[in-house]
Amino acid sequence: MSDNRGVVYLGQGQVEVQSIPFPKLLSPLGRTAEHGVILKVLTTNICGSDQHMVRGRTTATTGLVLGHEITGEVLEVGRDVETLQRGDIVSVPFNVACGRCRTCKEQHTGVCLSVNPSRAGGAYGYVDMGGWIGGQAEYVMVPYADFNLLKFPDREQAFEKIRDLTCLSDILPTGYHGAVTAGVGTGSTVYVAGAGPVGLAAAASARLLGAAVVIVGDVNPARLVHARHVGFETVDLSRDATLGEQIAQILGTPEVDCAIDAVGFEARGHGHAGSQEDAPATVLNALMEVTRAAGKIGIPGLYVTEDPGATDKAAKQGSLSIRLGLGWAKSHSFFTGQTPVMKYNRALMQAILWDRIHIADIVGVEVISLNNAPKGYAAFDAGAPKKFVIDPHDQLKLAA
Amino acid sequence: MSDNRGVVYLGQGQVEVQSIPFPKLLSPLGRTAEHGVILKVLTTNICGSDQHMVRGRTTATTGLVLGHEITGEVLEVGRDVETLQRGDIVSVPFNVACGRCRTCKEQHTGVCLSVNPSRAGGAYGYVDMGGWIGGQAEYVMVPYADFNLLKFPDREQAFEKIRDLTCLSDILPTGYHGAVTAGVGTGSTVYVAGAGPVGLAAAASARLLGAAVVIVGDVNPARLVHARHVGFETVDLSRDATLGEQIAQILGTPEVDCAIDAVGFEARGHGHAGSQEDAPATVLNALMEVTRAAGKIGIPGLYVTEDPGATDKAAKQGSLSIRLGLGWAKSHSFFTGQTPVMKYNRALMQAILWDRIHIADIVGVEVISLNNAPKGYAAFDAGAPKKFVIDPHDQLKLAA
Amino acid sequence: MSDNRGVVYLGQGQVEVQSIPFPKLLSPLGRTAEHGVILKVLTTNICGSDQHMVRGRTTATTGLVLGHEITGEVLEVGRDVETLQRGDIVSVPFNVACGRCRTCKEQHTGVCLSVNPSRAGGAYGYVDMGGWIGGQAEYVMVPYADFNLLKFPDREQAFEKIRDLTCLSDILPTGYHGAVTAGVGTGSTVYVAGAGPVGLAAAASARLLGAAVVIVGDVNPARLVHARHVGFETVDLSRDATLGEQIAQILGTPEVDCAIDAVGFEARGHGHAGSQEDAPATVLNALMEVTRAAGKIGIPGLYVTEDPGATDKAAKQGSLSIRLGLGWAKSHSFFTGQTPVMKYNRALMQAILWDRIHIADIVGVEVISLNNAPKGYAAFDAGAPKKFVIDPHDQLKLAA
Amino acid sequence: MSDNRGVVYLGQGQVEVQSIPFPKLLSPLGRTAEHGVILKVLTTNICGSDQHMVRGRTTATTGLVLGHEITGEVLEVGRDVETLQRGDIVSVPFNVACGRCRTCKEQHTGVCLSVNPSRAGGAYGYVDMGGWIGGQAEYVMVPYADFNLLKFPDREQAFEKIRDLTCLSDILPTGYHGAVTAGVGTGSTVYVAGAGPVGLAAAASARLLGAAVVIVGDVNPARLVHARHVGFETVDLSRDATLGEQIAQILGTPEVDCAIDAVGFEARGHGHAGSQEDAPATVLNALMEVTRAAGKIGIPGLYVTEDPGATDKAAKQGSLSIRLGLGWAKSHSFFTGQTPVMKYNRALMQAILWDRIHIADIVGVEVISLNNAPKGYAAFDAGAPKKFVIDPHDQLKLAA
Repeated sequence: MSDNRGVVYLGQGQVEVQSIPFPKLLSPLGRTAEHGVILKVLTTNICGSDQHMVRGRTTATTGLVLGHEITGEVLEVGRDVETLQRGDIVSVPFNVACGRCRTCKEQHTGVCLSVNPSRAGGAYGYVDMGGWIGGQAEYVMVPYADFNLLKFPDREQAFEKIRDLTCLSDILPTGYHGAVTAGVGTGSTVYVAGAGPVGLAAAASARLLGAAVVIVGDVNPARLVHARHVGFETVDLSRDATLGEQIAQILGTPEVDCAIDAVGFEARGHGHAGSQEDAPATVLNALMEVTRAAGKIGIPGLYVTEDPGATDKAAKQGSLSIRLGLGWAKSHSFFTGQTPVMKYNRALMQAILWDRIHIADIVGVEVISLNNAPKGYAAFDAGAPKKFVIDPHDQLKLAA
Repeated sequence: MSDNRGVVYLGQGQVEVQSIPFPKLLSPLGRTAEHGVILKVLTTNICGSDQHMVRGRTTATTGLVLGHEITGEVLEVGRDVETLQRGDIVSVPFNVACGRCRTCKEQHTGVCLSVNPSRAGGAYGYVDMGGWIGGQAEYVMVPYADFNLLKFPDREQAFEKIRDLTCLSDILPTGYHGAVTAGVGTGSTVYVAGAGPVGLAAAASARLLGAAVVIVGDVNPARLVHARHVGFETVDLSRDATLGEQIAQILGTPEVDCAIDAVGFEARGHGHAGSQEDAPATVLNALMEVTRAAGKIGIPGLYVTEDPGATDKAAKQGSLSIRLGLGWAKSHSFFTGQTPVMKYNRALMQAILWDRIHIADIVGVEVISLNNAPKGYAAFDAGAPKKFVIDPHDQLKLAA
Repeated sequence: MSDNRGVVYLGQGQVEVQSIPFPKLLSPLGRTAEHGVILKVLTTNICGSDQHMVRGRTTATTGLVLGHEITGEVLEVGRDVETLQRGDIVSVPFNVACGRCRTCKEQHTGVCLSVNPSRAGGAYGYVDMGGWIGGQAEYVMVPYADFNLLKFPDREQAFEKIRDLTCLSDILPTGYHGAVTAGVGTGSTVYVAGAGPVGLAAAASARLLGAAVVIVGDVNPARLVHARHVGFETVDLSRDATLGEQIAQILGTPEVDCAIDAVGFEARGHGHAGSQEDAPATVLNALMEVTRAAGKIGIPGLYVTEDPGATDKAAKQGSLSIRLGLGWAKSHSFFTGQTPVMKYNRALMQAILWDRIHIADIVGVEVISLNNAPKGYAAFDAGAPKKFVIDPHDQLKLAA
Repeated sequence: MSDNRGVVYLGQGQVEVQSIPFPKLLSPLGRTAEHGVILKVLTTNICGSDQHMVRGRTTATTGLVLGHEITGEVLEVGRDVETLQRGDIVSVPFNVACGRCRTCKEQHTGVCLSVNPSRAGGAYGYVDMGGWIGGQAEYVMVPYADFNLLKFPDREQAFEKIRDLTCLSDILPTGYHGAVTAGVGTGSTVYVAGAGPVGLAAAASARLLGAAVVIVGDVNPARLVHARHVGFETVDLSRDATLGEQIAQILGTPEVDCAIDAVGFEARGHGHAGSQEDAPATVLNALMEVTRAAGKIGIPGLYVTEDPGATDKAAKQGSLSIRLGLGWAKSHSFFTGQTPVMKYNRALMQAILWDRIHIADIVGVEVISLNNAPKGYAAFDAGAPKKFVIDPHDQLKLAA
């Protein structure tokens, strides 16, 4: 019972490493899960959407074991698993998916119909996502393992590139999905709102997809410095110049081909005056202004159905004042939702293994021990230009 | 100068047939247009978006010659025209497009970059769309004629099927674009918000695209009767039962695969209480509720950048309170904008000529004389389940 | 052991109904298959590709239990099956697929990488397709049942429409795949080579996809009569007029938008002289002639890697003399392979259940008893315009 | 009349620079072409398909002015041209296209229906392609200039990057089309048959599209050295090891995700024995062997309808003995035809201008004077790993 430890949410602003039960091959509803495996967690990352919970911006209740970005080693294999063996090193898509329902068959694993009784879509360690136990822990159970897990071809190579491969469980596919849905391709000019890890992963993905220029915007100076350091153009949204004006300084025109919202519902107002207040529709409205006619807007940034921490009543119910008339006049299209990681992770693994992308450096991976997870949450919340990766068994020997 | 007559907007609620100048091969900016032709108008339809102007819900100024749904006979041919001859019967896409800019080359003719100095996209007889003179008239000029015009293969056949073919200039492609962007295909279940002509054209298109079931919703009893009469399922939004409940009565589940907003910004509240007040986000919010996870929402209904007639301040600027959090949780995507008619009209012409669709009966085509155009506007505004088609030269001999 | 009976291949031209073992939850390699179910077969169809084996045009060995077009009732459920229960009525895609490999996840279930040790792709009762026991029998085992099976929503409705629904296991999706890959859509003009069941299913699919005109060609007079009777245009390839000339008589032009090869490698020469000899490239070469520039050619008709019955040496190895230079000059593209049934069967089921397609009448379904299966093989081989459907338990009470 | 000089085909193996007429705004049929411009040619490249003509492997007649890869400066503008001005620097897609027909509107500009009376598709200086005068000359006429020409945004920048930008008229888009149709994307493993300029451009495109590994195969040692030098993996087809074996040495598996035929109909046999004889189906048959199930095969390499130089009778008519049964068993699809340059050139220009691709170095651009064009033809025919670019006015001052 006590042979496992994990990061537990204890209420607004508080997380703690606690003893938690060792995982079993059981679904949250108590059904046997012989299709599952138990993993020894190799790496598990802290995500911006974990922060949404910890900041009290969701309906998450205390006691939740956090963590949905998981890479691990197969320890125990259910009887019905056919393709995996003890010792395999695997990436876990953050979406829990059954592989048997209509949406899974259509590659929409982000909205699996079977793994969450309350709505479409499941995830590990996340409010409203089906009750699957989180993986910021030493051990975790993954159901439907043959379907869900991506096995790395070579164990040694996997350890060598683990800082990059750990990004396959969420952050890199999520950025990539944003770029793909925004229509990024060869020669595109791209604007990414937000220089946090998702924004940087979207920017890196846009480059991998052949974009001519990638511009990242934020108000956080440290993040902007980092973004420039890893090769992107930047715009500083705390300046008085409008976003369009700053884009025009780079491109010669105030519009881009493709835009990605890597901020989501916790957006703040831009410019001097607005920067401290919530302004949840700001990003989307700005993207409509700077996206060319017939352009697409990818929205990997999270928008929620309920936001108890919102300042206005409409936003509490997930409603935003969006300037749809502008988007309509420009024939925009808009793409939302959890990324279906499985649609992309194999291809992105290949890109990592063959050195086509160095995502760890781009998003600022910093490996920490499990005990330091609470410090990681705090530093990330304070805006550090880092992606914190927990190494629960100190196998990477690189803990901060 | 006086050898032409057309329908002129005279201010809120008022249109009149007046003498207008005979068209010349000139652009609105006075540039010569040897790429153009002058058409003798055969049919020209009254559109719901004309009504937006006439109701004073746009910034249209008085004196505007209305009409963007035009079918005609080539009368005079510019020097640079290669593929058309006097006597050809042609359909005019409502979008004015140059065929030479980036968006035209990509088939996004709804947002041509050359024909409107103030924004992307041009149209005949429409506010903010480049100043091209409208075609609810006896004669009209069409620029870039080789590119824009769709020639019917046989003159006699064209006259026989003119009631259907007249729908190719806007209404049918617009409904079809809504259905295509909503992802309608073989076996889809489809909900169409709005039983006006665009809604009915979307419903007919969904059927043509292979939909299993098409459900049309409205509050107007006459339109619902007509929709059922032409073979669609209906839901009555003035009832107390929710949209989801009514859909479940038909399908056994409260969700559809695909949803189409054929209402736009002049939406009213649903149910007993709300039905008389503007509620511009009602339709979109309802569609997110009833569209399945990973579904698409096509939005051919017009949303404007400025709505002087709106009751609330945000809506005056085209901003709506949209429950984006709900759509995000369901991984929805959203498709807006003017339909690029040329992308679809040739295929739809073939469907008409080979009797695969009888769109005139479905949308309720009623042919009227030019003199009766003002009566047509009034009847349409009052909610008649009709699509009024003006026959300016009384060639169809069917005037009401 | 003897509680099952099935159709067994006994050598060129010979099939017989024999006692065969009752199925077990085991793979062909003897591995336990708790992911499988045992079905009581409700209907099972004779397919043109069964004929290829029975005619000795493949390397099939005697003793093979035939049958890959199966609809059934769930009788016994393996431990790992979650979504099915005894009594469910289900359609079995003819492809055996694991749902866990790369190609299955990409919806290419026709080339599953796990179910056949010798090549990509598995099927029931078919040479070289993995050794899965055929379903022209009273009972059959279906592996990976949660993934493979399509459950009909209502038992009673399933029995009512069983003549149509039985076409979902192969023939209708195969024709549909041909039409989809040929690019058929609204308003297309389509030529289908071959008026057998696959050709008719392709033609029906083209109509469902919105085609303006569908033309079917064959040399068999009875099949041409039937094709006309169910609403298609026809060309008689035994006539002296070329295919292009006959198409021009219908369309006014010798080319179509889309072409489908529903004949495959057993094609015979066209015209008076050639009609009795094998001419395996005839169909494809003719399709390149009559398909418009930039058109697509869908090839659901089977081409084999080895043809022991071929008259020339190259064809014995699956090589054909194709006029690729012609296709290249017209920018054609070509789509081959086993249909991934699962990609289409749910949508087509909806089209059947909502009366959008009456495929049984179009392909000429005729229900026969299991004992009459050998007669069905003989009649089909003789060119009867029929699709024979075996009713192994005489539950349909309609046997011939 | 004599104020122009160009490269003229004089019969098998012979080209010469001769005085030719100064271009006029006239179509080959003598129709006025006020939609055209006259260009001062800045660069014009020698293409492998020019070699097909010069080697006598087509039906080209003597006197033909060669050259379809053209970059130039606008010298004279027809009256109907709207978007171009004297002095603009432009890239000319090798396809002549009208911008007004059905296929042009669908972006299939490689098979324009209007510019060639004898078949779909036009080109400059090429047999059977409509009689448009070639551009390996000092001056050339380009019709439908608003539609056809791609204007570079900045004159000075254009001159700086002219060695790369000259590849936009054919070679780079052609390689890119091969990669796109082969389905190359993030993480793909790719095999390119042929290390000539098209093969190298395809390889470079695959890399730009995100491929993990790109393998190029050839028998020419100098070309293989060059391919490795610019960063690709190579296989030497003159070795005894099979293609699959050599691929397996690189990838660990004998199959790739995507394959591109950059050789075409003049393929020779592989291995020691076969390498000196024509074997026109060799490449395609090999690609089917090494392409994974469900893979796509892009065929930018030219296949002709008539090959007077072929050794066997079938090949003289463009027929090849293709092992289609193998491709069918693996569910392959095949994409042929002239590249529609306009679909890609703007995006690729952006990639060049923002330094995302250095195509000149990859294909081995070597600038030569017009007088040296015959030497360039000879050197290229001898297999030099070069792409010869003619500088007719010695403006680049880099002539060899």
